[in-house]
Amino acid sequence: MSGFVSFVGSGPGDPELLTLKAVNRLKQADAVLFDDLSSGPILSHVRAGADLVGVGKRAGRPSPKQDHVSRLLLDYAESGQRVVRLKSGDGGMFGRLEEEVVTLQAAGIPYEIIPGIPSACAAAAAAGIPLTRRLTARRVQFVTGHDVTGALPEDLNLAALADGQATTVVFMGKRTFPKLVKMLMDHGLPGDTPALLAENVSHPDQLLARSTLEELARRLEDGPGTNPALILYGPLAGEAP
Amino acid sequence: MSGFVSFVGSGPGDPELLTLKAVNRLKQADAVLFDDLSSGPILSHVRAGADLVGVGKRAGRPSPKQDHVSRLLLDYAESGQRVVRLKSGDGGMFGRLEEEVVTLQAAGIPYEIIPGIPSACAAAAAAGIPLTRRLTARRVQFVTGHDVTGALPEDLNLAALADGQATTVVFMGKRTFPKLVKMLMDHGLPGDTPALLAENVSHPDQLLARSTLEELARRLEDGPGTNPALILYGPLAGEAP
Repeated sequence: MSGFVSFVGSGPGDPELLTLKAVNRLKQADAVLFDDLSSGPILSHVRAGADLVGVGKRAGRPSPKQDHVSRLLLDYAESGQRVVRLKSGDGGMFGRLEEEVVTLQAAGIPYEIIPGIPSACAAAAAAGIPLTRRLTARRVQFVTGHDVTGALPEDLNLAALADGQATTVVFMGKRTFPKLVKMLMDHGLPGDTPALLAENVSHPDQLLARSTLEELARRLEDGPGTNPALILYGPLAGEAP
Repeated sequence: MSGFVSFVGSGPGDPELLTLKAVNRLKQADAVLFDDLSSGPILSHVRAGADLVGVGKRAGRPSPKQDHVSRLLLDYAESGQRVVRLKSGDGGMFGRLEEEVVTLQAAGIPYEIIPGIPSACAAAAAAGIPLTRRLTARRVQFVTGHDVTGALPEDLNLAALADGQATTVVFMGKRTFPKLVKMLMDHGLPGDTPALLAENVSHPDQLLARSTLEELARRLEDGPGTNPALILYGPLAGEAP
């Protein structure tokens, strides 16, 4: 008998930003594999007796290897269980969802994907700003600030990223931001382009700091810290209070 | 006595994709101003006696003017009511949120923004694919396929949009897609780049059709229809079943 895996986006962390469908799947699960950022009160929906397995990955700390997570997921599913794989934000964005999906497909395990509130949307909402605006910010783009080695990804599309008429959100990019800003400015984006640092989005200790590309790069050079963060830049970042 | 406005993202339409916070705000509202795509069962959470006002905008049909919506919002808030302004998907993305926010700011009405599941995330999830992937789709971007006049926006960043290493989602772009594809191909993006048309995302009559840029452009030239749709293109669109 084969199990079933629900990949569930938990949203950014505020338990009230779970969807009704996510709550429903958590209640029915026999096992829940969760990331660091989707722990805490979110897990209160899980029934007593279900397995709760933390498989968190977080910048600057040792964490389970991706193939170990996929293996664990497969083991639970192959034993016939209803498994929830809880991923912070929307699992489809920088959640390394594909690697786990491919493992299940190869083994013939049925699965579903339930979208979650992307942390970028929650960050903008918390700052009181939209991500797009007529005429001046018609494009919004999300990129990651590090590859598997922790470095800035190669082959960045700088024509896309140095566009002053777009809103750009950089995920997991605090360490590499100073280098990125240098590249953006070399490509013509002004150093005084508004930027917003959003740490611990939707958590009680959320921090929103409005700045500019240059100023934020300087601050992060002095010490990025380990709090999970997004950086949003573009004209709309300048509208944040 | 001043009211309070909650801008609430309703998600793409499936009532189970509402967040717990959205449900909470709907239950407490004195008045709910909603778009076409955030109607139906979603409104069942509103208490009896609350005002329900449809202010829907939809391609190809006459609809209330934006300044009329802002005016209505202000009228309700200034009479001291708790107002929910329900917007489909995530209100911060192509929801013309900013125009309504600015109206409230000018009048000194307090407001909050509650993020919703973007229809793009729901479309990808429904197709069983992520929006990003290590190495081959590290950037995801959302654009609108029409400006206020219904035409393809000018000043498109083609270097960004014709990037074969990104996932691009075009909102409200069926009518202008043939023209966009011509521009993308002129800019070097191959016509056989995978594309996915997603109509009525998360609704019972959802339609997902996998195709290529060229093929989809040809099909839409013959008749785009009026169903609300997203078009997703890039390498990951080719992984949809």
